[in-house]
Amino acid sequence: MIRAAVMSAPHQPLAVREFSEPRVEAGAVLLRTLGSEVCGTDVHLWHGRLAGVPYPIIPGHVSVGEVAAIGGAVADADGRPLMIGDVITFLDVYGSCGRCWYCTVAHASTRCPQRRVYGITLSSEEGLFGGWSEYIYLRPGVHIVTLPPNLPWETFMGAGCGLPTALHALERAEVRFGDTVVVQGSGPVGLSAAMLAQLRGAGKVIVIGGPAARLDLARRAGADALIDIDTTDAVARREAVYALTDGRGADVTIEATGVAAAVTEGMRLTRDAGRYVVVGQYTDAGPTEFNPHRDLNQKHLDVRGCWGSDLSHFYRAVQVLARYHTQFPWADLISGRYTLDQAQVALEDMAAQRVVKALIVPGR
Amino acid sequence: MIRAAVMSAPHQPLAVREFSEPRVEAGAVLLRTLGSEVCGTDVHLWHGRLAGVPYPIIPGHVSVGEVAAIGGAVADADGRPLMIGDVITFLDVYGSCGRCWYCTVAHASTRCPQRRVYGITLSSEEGLFGGWSEYIYLRPGVHIVTLPPNLPWETFMGAGCGLPTALHALERAEVRFGDTVVVQGSGPVGLSAAMLAQLRGAGKVIVIGGPAARLDLARRAGADALIDIDTTDAVARREAVYALTDGRGADVTIEATGVAAAVTEGMRLTRDAGRYVVVGQYTDAGPTEFNPHRDLNQKHLDVRGCWGSDLSHFYRAVQVLARYHTQFPWADLISGRYTLDQAQVALEDMAAQRVVKALIVPGR
Amino acid sequence: MIRAAVMSAPHQPLAVREFSEPRVEAGAVLLRTLGSEVCGTDVHLWHGRLAGVPYPIIPGHVSVGEVAAIGGAVADADGRPLMIGDVITFLDVYGSCGRCWYCTVAHASTRCPQRRVYGITLSSEEGLFGGWSEYIYLRPGVHIVTLPPNLPWETFMGAGCGLPTALHALERAEVRFGDTVVVQGSGPVGLSAAMLAQLRGAGKVIVIGGPAARLDLARRAGADALIDIDTTDAVARREAVYALTDGRGADVTIEATGVAAAVTEGMRLTRDAGRYVVVGQYTDAGPTEFNPHRDLNQKHLDVRGCWGSDLSHFYRAVQVLARYHTQFPWADLISGRYTLDQAQVALEDMAAQRVVKALIVPGR
Amino acid sequence: MIRAAVMSAPHQPLAVREFSEPRVEAGAVLLRTLGSEVCGTDVHLWHGRLAGVPYPIIPGHVSVGEVAAIGGAVADADGRPLMIGDVITFLDVYGSCGRCWYCTVAHASTRCPQRRVYGITLSSEEGLFGGWSEYIYLRPGVHIVTLPPNLPWETFMGAGCGLPTALHALERAEVRFGDTVVVQGSGPVGLSAAMLAQLRGAGKVIVIGGPAARLDLARRAGADALIDIDTTDAVARREAVYALTDGRGADVTIEATGVAAAVTEGMRLTRDAGRYVVVGQYTDAGPTEFNPHRDLNQKHLDVRGCWGSDLSHFYRAVQVLARYHTQFPWADLISGRYTLDQAQVALEDMAAQRVVKALIVPGR
Repeated sequence: MIRAAVMSAPHQPLAVREFSEPRVEAGAVLLRTLGSEVCGTDVHLWHGRLAGVPYPIIPGHVSVGEVAAIGGAVADADGRPLMIGDVITFLDVYGSCGRCWYCTVAHASTRCPQRRVYGITLSSEEGLFGGWSEYIYLRPGVHIVTLPPNLPWETFMGAGCGLPTALHALERAEVRFGDTVVVQGSGPVGLSAAMLAQLRGAGKVIVIGGPAARLDLARRAGADALIDIDTTDAVARREAVYALTDGRGADVTIEATGVAAAVTEGMRLTRDAGRYVVVGQYTDAGPTEFNPHRDLNQKHLDVRGCWGSDLSHFYRAVQVLARYHTQFPWADLISGRYTLDQAQVALEDMAAQRVVKALIVPGR
Repeated sequence: MIRAAVMSAPHQPLAVREFSEPRVEAGAVLLRTLGSEVCGTDVHLWHGRLAGVPYPIIPGHVSVGEVAAIGGAVADADGRPLMIGDVITFLDVYGSCGRCWYCTVAHASTRCPQRRVYGITLSSEEGLFGGWSEYIYLRPGVHIVTLPPNLPWETFMGAGCGLPTALHALERAEVRFGDTVVVQGSGPVGLSAAMLAQLRGAGKVIVIGGPAARLDLARRAGADALIDIDTTDAVARREAVYALTDGRGADVTIEATGVAAAVTEGMRLTRDAGRYVVVGQYTDAGPTEFNPHRDLNQKHLDVRGCWGSDLSHFYRAVQVLARYHTQFPWADLISGRYTLDQAQVALEDMAAQRVVKALIVPGR
Repeated sequence: MIRAAVMSAPHQPLAVREFSEPRVEAGAVLLRTLGSEVCGTDVHLWHGRLAGVPYPIIPGHVSVGEVAAIGGAVADADGRPLMIGDVITFLDVYGSCGRCWYCTVAHASTRCPQRRVYGITLSSEEGLFGGWSEYIYLRPGVHIVTLPPNLPWETFMGAGCGLPTALHALERAEVRFGDTVVVQGSGPVGLSAAMLAQLRGAGKVIVIGGPAARLDLARRAGADALIDIDTTDAVARREAVYALTDGRGADVTIEATGVAAAVTEGMRLTRDAGRYVVVGQYTDAGPTEFNPHRDLNQKHLDVRGCWGSDLSHFYRAVQVLARYHTQFPWADLISGRYTLDQAQVALEDMAAQRVVKALIVPGR
Repeated sequence: MIRAAVMSAPHQPLAVREFSEPRVEAGAVLLRTLGSEVCGTDVHLWHGRLAGVPYPIIPGHVSVGEVAAIGGAVADADGRPLMIGDVITFLDVYGSCGRCWYCTVAHASTRCPQRRVYGITLSSEEGLFGGWSEYIYLRPGVHIVTLPPNLPWETFMGAGCGLPTALHALERAEVRFGDTVVVQGSGPVGLSAAMLAQLRGAGKVIVIGGPAARLDLARRAGADALIDIDTTDAVARREAVYALTDGRGADVTIEATGVAAAVTEGMRLTRDAGRYVVVGQYTDAGPTEFNPHRDLNQKHLDVRGCWGSDLSHFYRAVQVLARYHTQFPWADLISGRYTLDQAQVALEDMAAQRVVKALIVPGR
């Protein structure tokens, strides 16, 4: 039997349940889980803040495992056939149809209505579709990326889902060499954004966030300046950013906070004709007010929403990690390790921000 | 003596005053005015809604004239030496320094702090720097564009400042072949935007505006569908746009209204992963509220402020007019002609929307 | 029995053969052919100039038909369920895997190794996979676009495969308002490029080509200037283009000739810092020589190869036609209509350039 | 009197001459030279391979100096007023007119016909317009960038003109996270390109070059793989690159060699739908042959010439150096220091590739 932690409904305690081993159909892969992430999205799931979740679910959308069984020949994103024992990860989003208007005409696959997400929009009634489980069942068509041999899987998990999300945001941000980049938020997405900004040649990286432990991590991640949200208000933060930018504001700002008012603030932290990417408004945090003349039109500002990520972001994130993981403290984002039976504790530690990111290690 | 209409202060009636003929310094040009535009900006000037205006001023920022005197050799934007009698126009913005950080590093010359604008930020105490005058003095460095021989100057004036502004907005909009484009606003900028959308191969152009005369002009300008703001509310307009777009919303929306709430509405008229260009918030019309999660982040929306225009937009506008002016009713945007002595009437007709655009013809 | 024209091998005369009616599997569609195109690619097929063609084949890659049978529920690209009798077309390319590195990471689906092409890379041994046939069998996954009611299917066929190819090239060209566009070649791709350039607001369109009948069509398609290749050499053509562009060269040049030397010539027809799109080198026409310093590096030139097209180009081509087909002479590109039994004649007329484009009408 | 090394004509030995101290006009700056670069361009100048050079000249186009005299108030690119003693550098290109069609409409200032270049296109008959001199005279309008306090001027000189050139090339290359970047050439431009590729998050950097000392520097600059041109031919190099890229070729290739045949080779080293930037063809090295079908059109390749650089590239280069100079061996590119009297030796050492880059230190 296979043990998995199940979230039966919002606000209910997680429980470990047993599942029978699935038959591996052609094109599918059975993965023995090495580790799976606990991130802010899981807290949102537990708080019932995401629409359309088919509870009960097995959470865990970014995971690493060893290939335990293969349904015939299955290849990874590079076209290499998988072998038993390979250490791989996979894109949580699968099933983008490749036929709808969004997939084909708009080339905006993250808006495909058919897409489903491991650990979020697949029920445990249907199968082992989340990472907080001894085994994960990868349906035919799931996009698989083999971890490069020099990349420790725990380091990959430290980057987790925050890195491809941040990578997508940085692509949208079009950072130019020497630009000043402000990152609003010091959670996993914000920290990865601060690191990636340096891998676009930013001239200065300013992180706005808290609490102190996260700011310390931001400093170790290379941030040139830190602004503590617990000791500043919006006016003070703006003055700080303008003082660091010759009075112009940031060339690029990345929002990764989840707080609605931060979006208006971010527009004002950005220089005229700059770019502002909003990636942290993952759930509905209510409205905010802005002045279209001053904050947008006269500023000649670009404001870019950034939703989800596709295989290209995920694949590129793995390549970036393999090349640069010794240079940046991605591994240190994991500040807690938990067994399957401790999944509820992991969730609560995450909700209370006692950890930056938690790791479920289901192995016995 | 040279007669010009002077706006001495906000809300004061215009008065025709006499000026002595200026000495034409090296590199300068004296222009005998054929016509000069009255547009919404002039109404704003009269209402005192623009900051930093050095009243008294001679209004009129887009004008056409005949070269009456030249200070030595002066060339147009194509490098052709001017001749007495040439019919030319010029970019109202001049004096972008070419040395500041915005001009050189950001390549965002419309944010250069040194830039000044004929008819707006130059005082009549300093000289003949506005078009509501028998003569206009073009300082050395003013960018001059010769009207192509096949382009009647009155047609050029019909397009006026609205066309380069709309052209800049359309560049920012990145319309793709077959896209559905919604234009919010049926004033000169909106009407030009609706025409230019067809010159980007839009598959459908929807104009939201009023009153009836302007919508009728929009129809003659090729709009495929019209939505009357006087008979609809935001909900009805959104339903109308979604019904015209297979339930997706517009690929591209262009805001040209001057109403703050229109910006939030426009975000909601645009499809997921679409583009929204805000060009009509020229003066401060107050704040508006939006939901960063639903209206921006989850939509993966691009929102782009668009401020001013530079010589490239102005020059390209002239080329577009020369090539396509018989195909679109730009000439019909002028619905009133006025002498210098009637400038006050022109302004009031414009303020009351009795005309789409007014033309001052100073010649005796 | 179903009659189809079969090309058994290069240089062999086409023969009409009979096929049994296929069983329509789930997701598939059987189409009663209204018309199918004969284009330059078919001549290449007959001359054996394309690699990897699994003769015998039924040619005809762009076709229109009426839905005769449906394998369950099948939707078009807009998500609308097909009905018997619908007049539709389909993208000849199908089977892009959506999983390989090119499809997912590079987002360059036209380089997917799995893609196959109706009328070209599918054998008649396998089924009715070409348009020169009374019926065409659309396998599950073929991308279908419904013709808008106001678009006559013969007009669509006039545009044929040349339009999406040209549309892709124009997208790559990034034409800006008022640009001068030179088109090298006056075949179907070149003529569509000349028309589409006007739907990007080009200020001047210059077509280089021949013979006279095609140049006449180019003139009716709106070209501002024509250069006859039969009466000019490369030096004369370059002088002509420079004379039309103030001595600068074209802002944008589109190559649609199939002649290798034209590529070097095109680089020299384009202005410094301009863009040059090469779309006409569909088969190997041998090498050409250029000077990297003068023709590329010092010119700061962009040279962009353009291969194939995907559903977005095809879909957008249909929208553009529906909106603008009365304004441009796409319908006139068809200068010959042929029955199935006349397919060989059609091919020979096409090879001899006696027609711009031929249409096979299989119906009895 | 001021001593400067003068190149009187191609192939003539340099000679130190004395000049009288210039009067500093309003807006000008007199700079006491700390160091000036000897680069491949100076060798070209000496070999007479550049057109339009007004010999005699004082070579030295990238230099650092201390402000010795100021003509009134002069500001740097950030708008900060200069003070006596400031350590600054300046863009060698000055005088771009800001008025011609290239400057204003095409926004391609590196093609402005008015631009002139310190150390290259200004004669020593006119003044102290090159860096191999005790003092340099900066005319009004020269773009000045202050060196950040944490950036040693000798490190800046190690990067020299190669860095902004490479930075411009990398901007044109649009490197995406995780891309494989091949750099052809291991001179100053190639080495800077290899370093900057890592500051765009490249997943793998491959340098093709020689001799051994430069390849060793490339390795220390972070190259993941080296290919020695002295022990390989084009076939072997291509096989090596394909072996390193899963058989696809490089996502991005940067040419920095000066050898015409390298351009054809580079097209073949790049993957389908990749980008190829040609920046090293600074002088006419003759023609090369390619196959437009296979090397360009079917490959869907982007080939981008890259000429010169403007203030944005230069300014950004300084910001990048200030932030990342301790991470990369830019300082080590200088492998020889010379007095003014040794300028001829410096030139010969450079021509013989005995040094990667030489530095003239005119101070006594």
